[in-house]
Amino acid sequence: MNQRLINVCLAPPLLPEMSINGNHIIVVADILRATTTICTAFDQEVARIFPLYDLENALALKKQGYFIAGERNGRKLDFADAGNSPFDLMTSDIKDKTIVFATTNGTQAINLAGTLGKTVIGAFVNLPVLSQWLCSQTENILVLCAGWKNQFSLEDTIFAGALIEELLKDESFIVSGDEAHAALDLWNAAKTDLYGFIKKASHIERLKLVGEGVSIEYCFKVGTSRSIPMLENGYLVNLSE
Amino acid sequence: MNQRLINVCLAPPLLPEMSINGNHIIVVADILRATTTICTAFDQEVARIFPLYDLENALALKKQGYFIAGERNGRKLDFADAGNSPFDLMTSDIKDKTIVFATTNGTQAINLAGTLGKTVIGAFVNLPVLSQWLCSQTENILVLCAGWKNQFSLEDTIFAGALIEELLKDESFIVSGDEAHAALDLWNAAKTDLYGFIKKASHIERLKLVGEGVSIEYCFKVGTSRSIPMLENGYLVNLSE
Repeated sequence: MNQRLINVCLAPPLLPEMSINGNHIIVVADILRATTTICTAFDQEVARIFPLYDLENALALKKQGYFIAGERNGRKLDFADAGNSPFDLMTSDIKDKTIVFATTNGTQAINLAGTLGKTVIGAFVNLPVLSQWLCSQTENILVLCAGWKNQFSLEDTIFAGALIEELLKDESFIVSGDEAHAALDLWNAAKTDLYGFIKKASHIERLKLVGEGVSIEYCFKVGTSRSIPMLENGYLVNLSE
Repeated sequence: MNQRLINVCLAPPLLPEMSINGNHIIVVADILRATTTICTAFDQEVARIFPLYDLENALALKKQGYFIAGERNGRKLDFADAGNSPFDLMTSDIKDKTIVFATTNGTQAINLAGTLGKTVIGAFVNLPVLSQWLCSQTENILVLCAGWKNQFSLEDTIFAGALIEELLKDESFIVSGDEAHAALDLWNAAKTDLYGFIKKASHIERLKLVGEGVSIEYCFKVGTSRSIPMLENGYLVNLSE
């Protein structure tokens, strides 16, 4: 049986020096909230999402008539049609459209991952459908935690652990590297009371401070989404359509 | 009561963008094996240790008659008097001497920490005496995990968690940031069977491959050392003398 490695990168600045060998599918996780919200947008049948960090470009695209979703430091962008809350994207306004998505951490990590290999979007909301699809592929897996401003984040790491637990049900997978072991251990510490565990995460406090606390619980719901967003030629599209 | 924050940096590349406010004492941890070995050398009453990364400088100092301890990738340097095993430094040859110490990860992290503030050396072997001393100070604490080649390591992170557990017995300390919470959670997962837990750490395998496995168990013994090495003007000296 061909063995498939699962690695985890705990924050983007650690990626350049990771010794990743062979072909990997990269799963980008920004649980609070970019990757959760992206899955939600595809559930609303958005056609494509253009992930972008730069706000000037986002503004220029707004002037061209695009629907813009985005935030800086957790707050909705002034000129945007929606923020980074999954609830903001639960609208039929985006059906069949190409929309622009600009966030503090997630969209940067997605574009970084895209330079390295096949890139898909992971979140608790699409965990079952994503892990099922990953099992049907042949590559190794690298989970890239987007974190917060290039730092480690608890919620992205425990998502990595939850995904590892799912993948290990398929015997072809093996955990590779201290990061992946730590992610799995943290998930095991968190899973019996996920929402209780995650309350200490700094980004929870940050979101509450900017009045965005209402969306947090949704971001830890497992399996509400059927979407598997994948990066193709700079756009996210839905594999499960 | 003045509250004191405990932060953790999980790997050196994450340090520049950490938002560390106020005065910190930086505790450098490279459990396998630099910081363990440094404590051991001070138990043998070495006078000073010059921490160095560059091998050319180490060789030049060897020619000047200095005792050199050091390794690259876990293996003893050809020209050195000792490797990076704590057992190599359990010798009266180093008593009252200034020695040079050059390692793959630890000595770099020590010098990096020295640019930021008061820097001390932490390991399981000096955990009780170090935590007691830290409690007697007034600054915030930052644990800098040296890791392996700029990557996360499980053993340095669980040491950070063990130190946090000790410090929290003093009510003036509070855990700050997701990294410190994760370190404490990992320590809680590890502590009932520390040596069993740590077997999955990649550096354990690496040391065994280069024939250095015999020193591993010693590196997880708590409290065998009475030394508190501190960086002063580029040299490590022992605070508890």
